[in-house]
Amino acid sequence: MRTERLAAFSDGVFAIAITLLALELPRPEGDDLWHELATQWEAYAAFIVSFLTVGIIWVNHHALVDRVARADRTLLFLNLLLLMWVSLIPWPTALVADHLSNDGAEAATAVFSAVFLGMALSFSAVWVHARRAGQLTGLTAAQLAHLSRRNGRGWVFYATALGLAFVAPAASLALNFAIAVYYLLPDRAARLA
Amino acid sequence: MRTERLAAFSDGVFAIAITLLALELPRPEGDDLWHELATQWEAYAAFIVSFLTVGIIWVNHHALVDRVARADRTLLFLNLLLLMWVSLIPWPTALVADHLSNDGAEAATAVFSAVFLGMALSFSAVWVHARRAGQLTGLTAAQLAHLSRRNGRGWVFYATALGLAFVAPAASLALNFAIAVYYLLPDRAARLA
Amino acid sequence: MRTERLAAFSDGVFAIAITLLALELPRPEGDDLWHELATQWEAYAAFIVSFLTVGIIWVNHHALVDRVARADRTLLFLNLLLLMWVSLIPWPTALVADHLSNDGAEAATAVFSAVFLGMALSFSAVWVHARRAGQLTGLTAAQLAHLSRRNGRGWVFYATALGLAFVAPAASLALNFAIAVYYLLPDRAARLA
Amino acid sequence: MRTERLAAFSDGVFAIAITLLALELPRPEGDDLWHELATQWEAYAAFIVSFLTVGIIWVNHHALVDRVARADRTLLFLNLLLLMWVSLIPWPTALVADHLSNDGAEAATAVFSAVFLGMALSFSAVWVHARRAGQLTGLTAAQLAHLSRRNGRGWVFYATALGLAFVAPAASLALNFAIAVYYLLPDRAARLA
Repeated sequence: MRTERLAAFSDGVFAIAITLLALELPRPEGDDLWHELATQWEAYAAFIVSFLTVGIIWVNHHALVDRVARADRTLLFLNLLLLMWVSLIPWPTALVADHLSNDGAEAATAVFSAVFLGMALSFSAVWVHARRAGQLTGLTAAQLAHLSRRNGRGWVFYATALGLAFVAPAASLALNFAIAVYYLLPDRAARLA
Repeated sequence: MRTERLAAFSDGVFAIAITLLALELPRPEGDDLWHELATQWEAYAAFIVSFLTVGIIWVNHHALVDRVARADRTLLFLNLLLLMWVSLIPWPTALVADHLSNDGAEAATAVFSAVFLGMALSFSAVWVHARRAGQLTGLTAAQLAHLSRRNGRGWVFYATALGLAFVAPAASLALNFAIAVYYLLPDRAARLA
Repeated sequence: MRTERLAAFSDGVFAIAITLLALELPRPEGDDLWHELATQWEAYAAFIVSFLTVGIIWVNHHALVDRVARADRTLLFLNLLLLMWVSLIPWPTALVADHLSNDGAEAATAVFSAVFLGMALSFSAVWVHARRAGQLTGLTAAQLAHLSRRNGRGWVFYATALGLAFVAPAASLALNFAIAVYYLLPDRAARLA
Repeated sequence: MRTERLAAFSDGVFAIAITLLALELPRPEGDDLWHELATQWEAYAAFIVSFLTVGIIWVNHHALVDRVARADRTLLFLNLLLLMWVSLIPWPTALVADHLSNDGAEAATAVFSAVFLGMALSFSAVWVHARRAGQLTGLTAAQLAHLSRRNGRGWVFYATALGLAFVAPAASLALNFAIAVYYLLPDRAARLA
């Protein structure tokens, strides 16, 4: 399959998942609206972390797919697995919004980090397969090594956030935010690419 | 109509339907979140089967549309019928999630399999029409015959799952999962194509 | 603006609106699922009429946009008006599903037909503007006249369905279905085009 | 990153956000449907203002992206920020629909205008960055100056609407409508472009 097709379908899933995040924001019905809006800060925090994370994975996905000339069947299904994790993101985002300040905080932030970890592992699987199958073009050996390290770091970060969820849920959410900021910052290889 | 247009619109519907599946996942509100998340395994099972099935039909749809040079009016409307079944999928997925463990299990899994059967029959109709109208290009007679058999098998499988729903709903869902895995596996013609 | 851009954005709105229709289908929670599914036939009827109508307007929209070389500002905003009506369709569809068998049937089917009428009028406005501004290419005078008549007929049909809603709501819904079938049938000009 | 990619992803988010607006329209369940539909005029007003605003920002976004040859990393993330505000719009739209006629009117219209202000500021940030980085092509100095003024005016307008929300919520919504109409009207530079 030509990768334009794959990119267009993936873009659709990314665009829908990122836009659905705002649907999860609670719409308080009571009369003291300022107060009610202020008390649902967990929903805003979860929204921002998820929005940035989907945005970043979209940017990275593009940088990867742009370098793949043709997708084989394995790449197609590894990519489908990645999209499954991406499409799931609005779900743990809603769980965190509902539970960050109550007894379910550990479970909610653990599921949140686990979905991000699944996404990062799938992304790495797409990357490793494309690299091994020699489908990546236009990168030097140094760039390949650098990007492999940078991509690999992702799931170490998210696994740490997952572990942290069981002891300090809010810190786990904050770590997920910090990971997003880390990937937002300019990167040596991105400048070279 | 040029098939790029048809492909782009179809891709949109596939991408939206597959991303909406996660919206159906229940968001438990109680305090014992781990326990509540564990008891809604039916929702996860239905989600995975539906996600894989939409993913596979997207891959197959692409392989088909890529070989059609121009779409006539009949193909356009057979394709629209296929998209109608695809867009329906989140609905029986939610029914299975809600009813797999209670008295509605037969009805829910029967509707689930019936929607997949409708989708498979529409896909076959698109395929048969495109083949008869000589709109398929770049395939040998042997490949055509092989793909016709492979596509035809789909609705036999789903009809079996539909029948099974009335006696063993969970087995029917498991069969739908097995069908997805069957189509995920590499195929002789796909390798040739 | 180049019309590819306009077409891609419009396709997105059409694809989303048509896929959201199935989200409106009620998901009964009770135990006698067969019975409950059977009693919500109004929802299936409204779904099918709306799905076919959006599908047809998409096909006609494409046939139109494909013939426009460049869109001016007026065309852009008439098209936006058309998309507004299209995006509204899931809303009256849900109203009809909820009210066809109770006291709100007249209001629900009237709003349903009024939204379709608004869509047809906007479509005619796009068509008339593109024709007057000389933006349509590749059509003979006879084809132009034929298509103008065919497009013009649309809003007469929907205005009739709107009037009928106040005396016979179910007949109004049936007429909307018949209009969809009429536009599904092959057309002389479509064959020529 | 090539800007076609950026444009396609952004188009997806715009198309989804604009189509989701209609999902927020309330579906009254009672028997006196005409009466209930008439009493929810706030929802229609908020829908129309939001639909026009997203439509206009889409048109302007396109005019901008069409002139950018290649997007750098900063542009990519400023654009992502813009899309975040756009994806949020269905949320304050629902708040205004629910609260315009009760005690929460100030808060609802203030959040509504604040989201539009955030969108306008992000748009200006994209514009200013693209201009400073010399990424805009095909515009004369006079056109650049004119468009900078026109874009800059946007956030002054929305800041005024935000201030007005605290004293006259309905007037604030009306001002947001007037801003949309202002940008709908033909513009000297748009005619030149």
